[in-house]
Amino acid sequence: MFEREVVLKLIGVLHTPHQTLEDMPIQPSGALDIEGSAELFPEYAEGLTDLEGFSHAILLYHLHKASGCKLRVKPFMDTVEHGIFATRSPCRPAAIGMSVVRISAVADGRLVFTGADMLDGTPLIDIKPFFGPVDNQPDAVSGWLETKDKNPAGLRHSDNRFCS
Amino acid sequence: MFEREVVLKLIGVLHTPHQTLEDMPIQPSGALDIEGSAELFPEYAEGLTDLEGFSHAILLYHLHKASGCKLRVKPFMDTVEHGIFATRSPCRPAAIGMSVVRISAVADGRLVFTGADMLDGTPLIDIKPFFGPVDNQPDAVSGWLETKDKNPAGLRHSDNRFCS
Repeated sequence: MFEREVVLKLIGVLHTPHQTLEDMPIQPSGALDIEGSAELFPEYAEGLTDLEGFSHAILLYHLHKASGCKLRVKPFMDTVEHGIFATRSPCRPAAIGMSVVRISAVADGRLVFTGADMLDGTPLIDIKPFFGPVDNQPDAVSGWLETKDKNPAGLRHSDNRFCS
Repeated sequence: MFEREVVLKLIGVLHTPHQTLEDMPIQPSGALDIEGSAELFPEYAEGLTDLEGFSHAILLYHLHKASGCKLRVKPFMDTVEHGIFATRSPCRPAAIGMSVVRISAVADGRLVFTGADMLDGTPLIDIKPFFGPVDNQPDAVSGWLETKDKNPAGLRHSDNRFCS
């Protein structure tokens, strides 16, 4: 039979100005001027070597305050329900979040970035370098999001719908 | 003190033609014609609703066969070492992989896609819809990868360097 859970190591913690789940930017594009940092646990600091040459990084983190997972949700950017895997809503079966952020500096076991759309104290799972030829999809079609403002994340902030 | 591990639910399993870690495509861009599927556990199938309207999905999965995590690695695409967080190498502290794949079909609790660069039987952690205005970074600069072929993942396959 298939495993139903996985245990992953955490590599550090995210520091941001966001202390509560309400009224947060819902994506990095709504937080372009908001600075955050990833503080790695000392034993992992060496792994940041050469990341400073990249303009963007992909952060994967534990959505540790999300709760009330449902399979259909009304996301921040719509008024009707969609399947959870067709949304970026935080209350997912596996509470993992992903943000592509712009790198400001890398030094002393710390990555400083802009685009901070995470809660302060969020546990960090992984950092990957953004590689345009692999990660960009210039012809992407965005389903129900196609009919929304093309940069809606810059306008929308969270509310309390996914708070416990 | 900070937590050092996180337990995440798995939502399904990936089916691909790749039975061994050697000679695999190292990114979806090297597997554009290779079909795979994500089979969700029945209790999560409803969460796929409306994903079929998107052209691309982000798959997050457990790199369950990676081993020998090191903080500096010589990645498939270079001959010198880099910090693990400046590479996409599979042997990371948190063994989590990410691939952006092209959606072929969504039905009966299953997502069929092209761009299959994962091992058959890989445990699936999450599916997120790709949203161009948030996920694309047209001005991205790629550090040490900038000096490599701009589409090297289409040429390179894995070898046994990260096998146990």
